[in-house]
Amino acid sequence: MTVGIVGYGNLGRGVESAIRQNPDIQLEAIFTRRNPESVTAGTRMVSISDIEEYKGKIDVMILCGGSATDLPEQGPELSKMFNTVDSFDTHARIPEYFDKVDSSARSGGNVSVISTGWDPGLFSLNRLLAEAVLPEGNEYTFWGKGVSQGHSDAIRRVKGVKNGVQYTIPREEAVEKVRSGSNPELSTREKHLRECFVVAEEGADKDAITNEIKTMPNYFADYNTVVHFISEDELRAEHSRIPHGGNVLRSGKTGENSTQIVEFSLKLDSNPEFTASVLVAYARAVYRMAQAGDKGAKTVFDVPYGLLSPKSAEELRKQLL
Amino acid sequence: MTVGIVGYGNLGRGVESAIRQNPDIQLEAIFTRRNPESVTAGTRMVSISDIEEYKGKIDVMILCGGSATDLPEQGPELSKMFNTVDSFDTHARIPEYFDKVDSSARSGGNVSVISTGWDPGLFSLNRLLAEAVLPEGNEYTFWGKGVSQGHSDAIRRVKGVKNGVQYTIPREEAVEKVRSGSNPELSTREKHLRECFVVAEEGADKDAITNEIKTMPNYFADYNTVVHFISEDELRAEHSRIPHGGNVLRSGKTGENSTQIVEFSLKLDSNPEFTASVLVAYARAVYRMAQAGDKGAKTVFDVPYGLLSPKSAEELRKQLL
Repeated sequence: MTVGIVGYGNLGRGVESAIRQNPDIQLEAIFTRRNPESVTAGTRMVSISDIEEYKGKIDVMILCGGSATDLPEQGPELSKMFNTVDSFDTHARIPEYFDKVDSSARSGGNVSVISTGWDPGLFSLNRLLAEAVLPEGNEYTFWGKGVSQGHSDAIRRVKGVKNGVQYTIPREEAVEKVRSGSNPELSTREKHLRECFVVAEEGADKDAITNEIKTMPNYFADYNTVVHFISEDELRAEHSRIPHGGNVLRSGKTGENSTQIVEFSLKLDSNPEFTASVLVAYARAVYRMAQAGDKGAKTVFDVPYGLLSPKSAEELRKQLL
Repeated sequence: MTVGIVGYGNLGRGVESAIRQNPDIQLEAIFTRRNPESVTAGTRMVSISDIEEYKGKIDVMILCGGSATDLPEQGPELSKMFNTVDSFDTHARIPEYFDKVDSSARSGGNVSVISTGWDPGLFSLNRLLAEAVLPEGNEYTFWGKGVSQGHSDAIRRVKGVKNGVQYTIPREEAVEKVRSGSNPELSTREKHLRECFVVAEEGADKDAITNEIKTMPNYFADYNTVVHFISEDELRAEHSRIPHGGNVLRSGKTGENSTQIVEFSLKLDSNPEFTASVLVAYARAVYRMAQAGDKGAKTVFDVPYGLLSPKSAEELRKQLL
């Protein structure tokens, strides 16, 4: 099967690299809004304005643009011409995005799996599974330890801040309480800590910066927040990776009074590379659903796991069941 | 939708109780090989020899017999007449069992999902998912802490043993090594401990019992095994629950050298009640697949998670994605 990548940032580069681990998938071209000649890659770079010429030549387009402005346009547009897969992650806007992509994919006779990745994506799957198996219970999601782009951006907008990175950190005592089966009520503050590494501008008022961060509504005010000031060199050396992860737990009751705990967790050195790996596995499923004559938008909830693997159904039953 | 339960041991009772947590599922009857009048339950008890009279009246039969002798007969037999779901768990014989159930389910125009539960079942799903997303990596499964029926039976066959229970216990240091991403090579002995609680017969030679257990090939010889002698009362008081659980981990590499860890784990107070809860969720999926015109044997790999939940696709996208 052949695929194309649309958008060549961290995620697109991760997809390019993930495809090398999947010998049944061939990368045909990378589509970019930049001048394709200005971008160096091991793959043919093509201007996104020429993408229509690839209709019929690429089985699945892997959309690697951002959820704020790229995907809301590209998803509906490209699913008219191609089977697509994306990691649209604005939770609140998923129903609306699904409807748009569904109607354009149907009009083009294509299959589009939206909102893969890990949250939404693998975390959502585990929420659904655990809730279906344990209808009486509570669900808990913890994120981190990892870099939150939204919170890092918020720090960088503070006056006197030159650069900064924010880590979301689950509070281990809260995770352990859930694992113990005690079904705790946990406040926002009890679930996560926020740790900030900030590079201040020359002569900036560090106390004022700390105060502005810690009291920032929506982002930090409801949390215990720690602020460290470091140098630009230190930030580059120690905080340029993009780790992330988290835990989805469900604590349920069955029978007379049995506690049953289901947990799914991720510990990721590279958030974009992992999301990219999920996208590639779902691209395989998109291809197979399209081959089978399926049409329209789908989510991870509609895709049987067997379609994600290069192995045949017989091999899977023999080796993995 | 209406269901029946075939077999009324620990698992069948667990299913009866799980159905009470799922208001969209109605339990019609429980089928038993015993004299139905000798069994007390909150549901109509029917002799299994009369099961054919329920053809067309029950949407899905939930098969709760054992994998050694019950299911190899009942699976192929009943899938001619009914949609079925089971937790057949003899890993090595799954391909053969699948083929038999597939041909009889097709001949009857029914859908049969085999080998649900947690291993095979939810653990298998997580092995497949993690391998598809992280093709370069290693998979590790740890079982426990939990009661192994096979090992408990083996203890009880030792001369001088009146009763006994065996716990399989994952070695925490091995689990932590895997979580660290170091991709360790782990021997059988390094992965699990075996702890035995034994009630000896009056005057039995306890050293001889201990020695026979610890050196028993296949069951204990390759492990560090601890043997405790306790009284029958103590066994009943402290060891009559059937806890289990375990962890499926995959430690993979992406990009230049990023370590990515995916973990799924269960901590179960009651192994049969949890397996029963999984069976009931998959019974819902069987019903829906049959409604959609699907036929033949399926495994958990063929069932999209969306079919497990009583919620509609729209609700799932809005609430859980």
